Amino acid sequence: MKVLFKKAAIIGLGLIGGSLALAAKKQRLAGSIFGVDRDRQELERARAKSALDRFTVKLRELPSDCDLIILATPVGQFEPLVRKLISRIGPGCVVTDVGSTKAAPVALLESLMPKGAAFVGAHPIAGKEKSGFQAATPDLFSKAKCILTPTSQTDRNALRKVKQFWTRIGAQVILMDPEEHDRVLATISHLPHLVAYAMVNTALNVLDEDKKLLSLSGGGFRDFTRIAASSPEMWRDICLQNDKHILCNIEAYEAVMARLKDMIRSRDRDGLMREMQRARGIREKLA
Amino acid sequence: MKVLFKKAAIIGLGLIGGSLALAAKKQRLAGSIFGVDRDRQELERARAKSALDRFTVKLRELPSDCDLIILATPVGQFEPLVRKLISRIGPGCVVTDVGSTKAAPVALLESLMPKGAAFVGAHPIAGKEKSGFQAATPDLFSKAKCILTPTSQTDRNALRKVKQFWTRIGAQVILMDPEEHDRVLATISHLPHLVAYAMVNTALNVLDEDKKLLSLSGGGFRDFTRIAASSPEMWRDICLQNDKHILCNIEAYEAVMARLKDMIRSRDRDGLMREMQRARGIREKLA
Repeated sequence: MKVLFKKAAIIGLGLIGGSLALAAKKQRLAGSIFGVDRDRQELERARAKSALDRFTVKLRELPSDCDLIILATPVGQFEPLVRKLISRIGPGCVVTDVGSTKAAPVALLESLMPKGAAFVGAHPIAGKEKSGFQAATPDLFSKAKCILTPTSQTDRNALRKVKQFWTRIGAQVILMDPEEHDRVLATISHLPHLVAYAMVNTALNVLDEDKKLLSLSGGGFRDFTRIAASSPEMWRDICLQNDKHILCNIEAYEAVMARLKDMIRSRDRDGLMREMQRARGIREKLA
Repeated sequence: MKVLFKKAAIIGLGLIGGSLALAAKKQRLAGSIFGVDRDRQELERARAKSALDRFTVKLRELPSDCDLIILATPVGQFEPLVRKLISRIGPGCVVTDVGSTKAAPVALLESLMPKGAAFVGAHPIAGKEKSGFQAATPDLFSKAKCILTPTSQTDRNALRKVKQFWTRIGAQVILMDPEEHDRVLATISHLPHLVAYAMVNTALNVLDEDKKLLSLSGGGFRDFTRIAASSPEMWRDICLQNDKHILCNIEAYEAVMARLKDMIRSRDRDGLMREMQRARGIREKLA
């Protein structure tokens, strides 16, 4: 199959950007891939794995004739990044991202696009607790879902190409409104991460960081420590970008937890059983 | 190696009792194993896998000359169970359990033991979200930790034999005070399960049980649904038996969550980063 883009650039060669570069190379989706990262080591690692053709640590050295630019930094960096990048975004260029929040970044990036360039918001639901290029693999997105968030302003041709890009990488593409994306992801991804961070920090508080006691943990707590090992910078940015929906979800969660607490206090055997059975039922729903 | 017990009985042939029967058979720890369960099907499944020599659904049919009786039902059933069982517990018999709480059951069972019989509290930290004998495996306890909770009343010979039993099954035995066990397990096991139940039920509430939206969940939320699929009956009992420590832990957890919420509200970038970095650090602590 022929390449989808002649000259692609990826800004941020961490887990997601690095995996995208590897996957795009493997599927021959781009004629060449140019990498930009503030960390030269990440770029050198990516180059050594043939994920990149060329790279730079200086944004201003990005060629101005790229036909695809993928933003793969934490979402909090999009604004200063694109402001510096504007002169390098030429006509016909498709700009896309992999950010975990969509409403704010999509509105921002649409407003910043120079004439002739098109922005398409994207969020691949893939990742792991390890970060950096060293954790990147070409198969990270295979069978993963990738949410694209077109708006009334989105160029249809650019959308079609970004959709093809993710499909050929092996992802299942889903279209959603940016605001709806943020609402849903707050529940199924952002809240679980906050809950895991809070759970781990509670254990550290209560057990006074006693390594011997913490190591008694079985399967349940181990899963929390895995989730809580996700990139702090990325999750800090997500909290601040999707604050409205996340705060709503925390409140909904606090209400459920308060009810459980009341049931324990009042020794409500049937109530506890019902809550636990309801939660257990989700497995069959998702199966 | 010679058998540790001539006639063993296991009450409750679910995941833990069933795995214990399989493991004891594999390691030749008992001359014979007698199974009791209210569910005949579980017993027949266990017999078909050669985990049991004989079985009954009627407690009163348990032979009175067993030298080991293992209670492997949910902890809430211990009291009525042992009251019915008392006439079947002969002199020299070692009674032990696998309950996830220890202070209340140990005090209760010590007080109920007939003269000449000895009780030793035990809690293997192993399990999975599946329940029932069908999920049982002889290797469930291999390399797992098993906490024994002797008290000043515990017969030293019985303790030594129970310790040998778990060691030969492949578990790493740890001794703890029953109250200390409950305090620590509330943090590293009971709270995580409640947090997972609450998280899953929040998602069901907020997304109105919409299967299409719930299925967008990535790795993080999937882990919660796995934990929340644990036996509701078992976890209801744990909540009621260890209510004091669990309520303390929920309050400590609510305070951490409230602080995260305040940090998001006040856009405290540094505070959020610190919380997340602290949680991330636990992985190295536990490594």
